[in-house]
Amino acid sequence: MASPTGNLIDGDRLWRNLMALGELTDPNRPFTRRCFTEQFLTGRRWLAERFEAAGLSVQVDAGGNLIGRREGSDPGLRTLAIGSHSDTVPSGGRFDGPLGVVAGLEVAETLREQDITLRHPLEIIDFLSEEPSEYGLSCVGSRAMTGHLTPAMLELTNAGGETLSDAMARMGARPAERLPDGRRDIAAFLELHVEQARFLEDRGLDIGIVTGIAGILRLEIVFTGSPDHAGTTPYDLRRDALLAAAGTVLAVRSLGEELADARDGFFVATTGVLAVAPNAANVVPGSARLVVEARAEHVASFARFTDRLSEASLAAAASAGVERSTFRPLSRSEPAHCDPRLRAHLDAGATDLGLSRTAMASGAGHDSAFMATIAPTAMIFVPSQEGRSHCPEEWTEPADCVQGAALLMDTLMRLDWDDAFSG
Amino acid sequence: MASPTGNLIDGDRLWRNLMALGELTDPNRPFTRRCFTEQFLTGRRWLAERFEAAGLSVQVDAGGNLIGRREGSDPGLRTLAIGSHSDTVPSGGRFDGPLGVVAGLEVAETLREQDITLRHPLEIIDFLSEEPSEYGLSCVGSRAMTGHLTPAMLELTNAGGETLSDAMARMGARPAERLPDGRRDIAAFLELHVEQARFLEDRGLDIGIVTGIAGILRLEIVFTGSPDHAGTTPYDLRRDALLAAAGTVLAVRSLGEELADARDGFFVATTGVLAVAPNAANVVPGSARLVVEARAEHVASFARFTDRLSEASLAAAASAGVERSTFRPLSRSEPAHCDPRLRAHLDAGATDLGLSRTAMASGAGHDSAFMATIAPTAMIFVPSQEGRSHCPEEWTEPADCVQGAALLMDTLMRLDWDDAFSG
Repeated sequence: MASPTGNLIDGDRLWRNLMALGELTDPNRPFTRRCFTEQFLTGRRWLAERFEAAGLSVQVDAGGNLIGRREGSDPGLRTLAIGSHSDTVPSGGRFDGPLGVVAGLEVAETLREQDITLRHPLEIIDFLSEEPSEYGLSCVGSRAMTGHLTPAMLELTNAGGETLSDAMARMGARPAERLPDGRRDIAAFLELHVEQARFLEDRGLDIGIVTGIAGILRLEIVFTGSPDHAGTTPYDLRRDALLAAAGTVLAVRSLGEELADARDGFFVATTGVLAVAPNAANVVPGSARLVVEARAEHVASFARFTDRLSEASLAAAASAGVERSTFRPLSRSEPAHCDPRLRAHLDAGATDLGLSRTAMASGAGHDSAFMATIAPTAMIFVPSQEGRSHCPEEWTEPADCVQGAALLMDTLMRLDWDDAFSG
Repeated sequence: MASPTGNLIDGDRLWRNLMALGELTDPNRPFTRRCFTEQFLTGRRWLAERFEAAGLSVQVDAGGNLIGRREGSDPGLRTLAIGSHSDTVPSGGRFDGPLGVVAGLEVAETLREQDITLRHPLEIIDFLSEEPSEYGLSCVGSRAMTGHLTPAMLELTNAGGETLSDAMARMGARPAERLPDGRRDIAAFLELHVEQARFLEDRGLDIGIVTGIAGILRLEIVFTGSPDHAGTTPYDLRRDALLAAAGTVLAVRSLGEELADARDGFFVATTGVLAVAPNAANVVPGSARLVVEARAEHVASFARFTDRLSEASLAAAASAGVERSTFRPLSRSEPAHCDPRLRAHLDAGATDLGLSRTAMASGAGHDSAFMATIAPTAMIFVPSQEGRSHCPEEWTEPADCVQGAALLMDTLMRLDWDDAFSG
């Protein structure tokens, strides 16, 4: 039996490119290459040169995504796409995002080097602003490509008053050219990403084959009591908003654990934001605002969680004698499901390459969640050391990066010959 | 039987003066006359004129207190003093503080009008900066008079960098002339104040005779966990500082209720401050800082509360898998006890004047707490409508103000002839 196609990739080149892109950082704050900055454009110029050297034709699309394209031999077939993002959070790492883009580049380099012509066109995509930016929105480029970037989002502004639309234009986008329905010419989308958690590492596994990407529901809860004198107001007259908030924080955790243990797909809930007013030592808290985040693989979990938390927070309010003045969703993104046929190809490829793997959900959001709305989509996770991410210590071993890229390459070849993706 | 001396006061004049002082406010933010401002000095000039018109000799002492003095007939006797404060919190009321000063003024007016000469010298005192100011300290004048204003306190600064010492000098104080042991020439001190709570109103009582002024202990508690990704970090790996904080907030309340119900003197505890970091929806709280305040009439309650809360907060930290990195007192003032002989005089006076009354503790701090360290001290409370205080709606009915002043006058006459205060 021939060596799997995935083994044709050049692991040293992949690693060299990944480290080279990592060097293009704010020197005072490694590793920082935030979207809409000069550093980001420097990284993009570097990527565009590499794309061209790999024989790709390079363009920035209307949504500001950098795309390297290679035509296929069969003009009737739709595009196979590989992508992720080159932008980072402030003081982030060298893997979250860049690995998936550089692995796509490596696939293109290998195709050119091995003189392989695919039947399908291939695109390597660096999505614009996957990470939250100063404009308060993540996944800007994948939203644009899939018809999820609304006019209201384009009007979001940063602290300086610049609109997202203007900032996108600075990155080479043409925000006016919106695609309300998204691209319809993509046959399949694949993304390689670091896990950002310890699941694979703790189990000594090479690969995670992602089943779905959690949807994210953010709820705002406000309790309104009375900011009374902490020395003169007896307990029976107090309306202490923080008491209700504290009870709700504990309920979020216990309900979250209950839904996670129910094993009806991935679920987790967190109270990340709590602000008290007037927040003075000698005043009973008059109001408390919480932002609760739930992440779920199945949309039904959101309803269950919201109902139960509504009851629990009303009970906490009643017990503290305060009003639950707000209980509303701030934002919601739907769960995305990875395509079963693509997952089967990934699994078969992993067998050929001798890689241990597991099916797992993604608790973090990714461009793939938007791409799944317009095309069969799948994700490959490789281990993150100690699960650390969004920090300079973020690390994935070279061998793990290379295995992920090999599986990407291998799966691409399988897809190219699978008639299920030739429609 | 002759009408009680207290009935000699002029209730209309008292009310007129009280309302006139209230008018001396920041016009854009009634009722605001914060210490160290021009408004405050305007109020003080008005008071000084009234003191002089009432036959008092006026001075500002080293601690910045405005004092109107009337000599007595017996040069060997120490001073009887009446006082409170004319400064307010921002957007405060017209009663908290001013009532006690204006009632002292009314006593002096009545003495002059009725041509009464006391055996003891009498002083009416407007203490400097009873309310917290920009310099972060309350009861500045009464601390100074009683030897509790330390050199370190004098070096406190406001946001503009001015020291408290310099600010006091602007108010006419001579901060360098410290009295390490406090004044020793005061035979007794009386303060009339609004209750700032609903205890008297709810029970339809005229007068509260204060048994003691709660000491205030402020504890800082910090929990340190790990600011992990709220989507990718499973529950068993989380170190959520907010969970520990929430458990502690509930423990503060339940321990506080337990100690209050034990009826070993006044006790109340509050978590007024809670700050979470990074306080972002998608990040598990990595740290949480609380400031817990306990107010107690008996010092032993502080130790009981601190021990129990230490256990409870350690348990909350262990349960959340976080470290309780800080548990320390930020500040502590000791409880003050009102003098039993003075309380007996107040009780007898109330009987003569036909006033219903109760013994009660003060949960709020007052200049009296410091005066109690150098002289027998007692306080009279009159009802606050709906218990509202530190707000423009703060209100005490004219009849209640007059009754309080009458009791002050009556008690002063009793003290002047009580040999127990002639030593």
